[in-house]
Amino acid sequence: MGKKYAVDYQVPFYETDVNHNVKLPHLLSLALQVSGLQSLSLGVGDDYIFKTHHLVWIITEYDIEIERLPKYGEKIIIETEPTAYNKLFCYRDFTIYGENGDKIVLIHSVFVLMDYESRKVHQVVDDIVAAFDVEKIKRIVRGPKYSALESPEETLYRVRYFDLDLNGHVNNSKYLEWMYDVIDIDFLRQHIPQKVNLKFIKEVYYGNDILSRVERDGLTSRHEITSAGTVRAQAKIEWKSKAD
Amino acid sequence: MGKKYAVDYQVPFYETDVNHNVKLPHLLSLALQVSGLQSLSLGVGDDYIFKTHHLVWIITEYDIEIERLPKYGEKIIIETEPTAYNKLFCYRDFTIYGENGDKIVLIHSVFVLMDYESRKVHQVVDDIVAAFDVEKIKRIVRGPKYSALESPEETLYRVRYFDLDLNGHVNNSKYLEWMYDVIDIDFLRQHIPQKVNLKFIKEVYYGNDILSRVERDGLTSRHEITSAGTVRAQAKIEWKSKAD
Repeated sequence: MGKKYAVDYQVPFYETDVNHNVKLPHLLSLALQVSGLQSLSLGVGDDYIFKTHHLVWIITEYDIEIERLPKYGEKIIIETEPTAYNKLFCYRDFTIYGENGDKIVLIHSVFVLMDYESRKVHQVVDDIVAAFDVEKIKRIVRGPKYSALESPEETLYRVRYFDLDLNGHVNNSKYLEWMYDVIDIDFLRQHIPQKVNLKFIKEVYYGNDILSRVERDGLTSRHEITSAGTVRAQAKIEWKSKAD
Repeated sequence: MGKKYAVDYQVPFYETDVNHNVKLPHLLSLALQVSGLQSLSLGVGDDYIFKTHHLVWIITEYDIEIERLPKYGEKIIIETEPTAYNKLFCYRDFTIYGENGDKIVLIHSVFVLMDYESRKVHQVVDDIVAAFDVEKIKRIVRGPKYSALESPEETLYRVRYFDLDLNGHVNNSKYLEWMYDVIDIDFLRQHIPQKVNLKFIKEVYYGNDILSRVERDGLTSRHEITSAGTVRAQAKIEWKSKAD
């Protein structure tokens, strides 16, 4: 395990959903912000690696375990820790501590370095990760397999101006918003996710339409985001009743 | 003028746009958060007025003057000050100070108290505003007149799950997102707003379609948000070239 870094945060009203919980896509954005701050504090911030190597960090996979979500006004701690890396992938955990000190959310994530111009994955640069004091491993940690959806419901979305971040790319958290949005609101009012697996395959661009496709079977929903006929992201969400 | 209250804030990457500036709708959410914190600090927080009076604060109008927008990573101060109130309306300013200490954004806003059940405007409760030490006036401060659009372009939007806040209502900042989104992205990459007048007329609800209508004439854009055939919000935005 590598160097830890933590940030305090209080959940504002405009980032909470109808259940008074933080919006999960926002929690992913926050987590990314915290890892960005750690990189900066170690002298290998996003600006630095862009200027010296023309690389940017992107996330390819999330595996999220949720005991409960942070609530409106709750003071939480977001802690991050790089756990290992290999030739291509960097593994990093985020732990969210609730106001009572309990671990309430655990986010396992996979980062890769991408060449900004070619949009292709670049080998991990030892120079950059050295700052995190993290172990290099040979093996690749595999996420779950996602089988193709067979007869999904699908809804059309357009990429909106404010879906773009400062790089002009669709922010990762938007994919999860499109996935949530196709689920019946009555279900979303009664359930919270307890396990989310989310994989990003290919970027979508401004001006393109996307389809958010879903199949729900009881407390499991399986998702695909497609654009121009190809799959851009896949997810599996296990839900639990809010009452539990 | 009443009691002032200020909060420090650093602009995170996921709240910045393609121009590396903070997303203006996010700045409005933040401002609202700051006035909420002031109310809380004075013992008249949102929970308190809901429990004791069954009332909630809503915003009916903004008048925003922008010298420049806060940038990615910039450490800003958001200061708020109630300026006056009358029988129905409470007037409040927000001043955004940039990292160099300059006033970069000034937001004039109009708040009213709404009955949570009837969704109707309620007279200002002296009891609640007393905490802010602000002058009661007789006159009503009038915003600009918005004439109806004559031959606007219009784009259809659906209210999305994550457009809802913890009250289950569409967050105010979303209206401005819909207004921005119908403007050509090349224009948005080259211009920033310098003056925004925005008026909220009637809520839109989840499950309803809305139309974002726009007429742009040079550096002025005029906007309407309609739903079920009636106007819900109107705005006028004066833009300036980023290069200026």
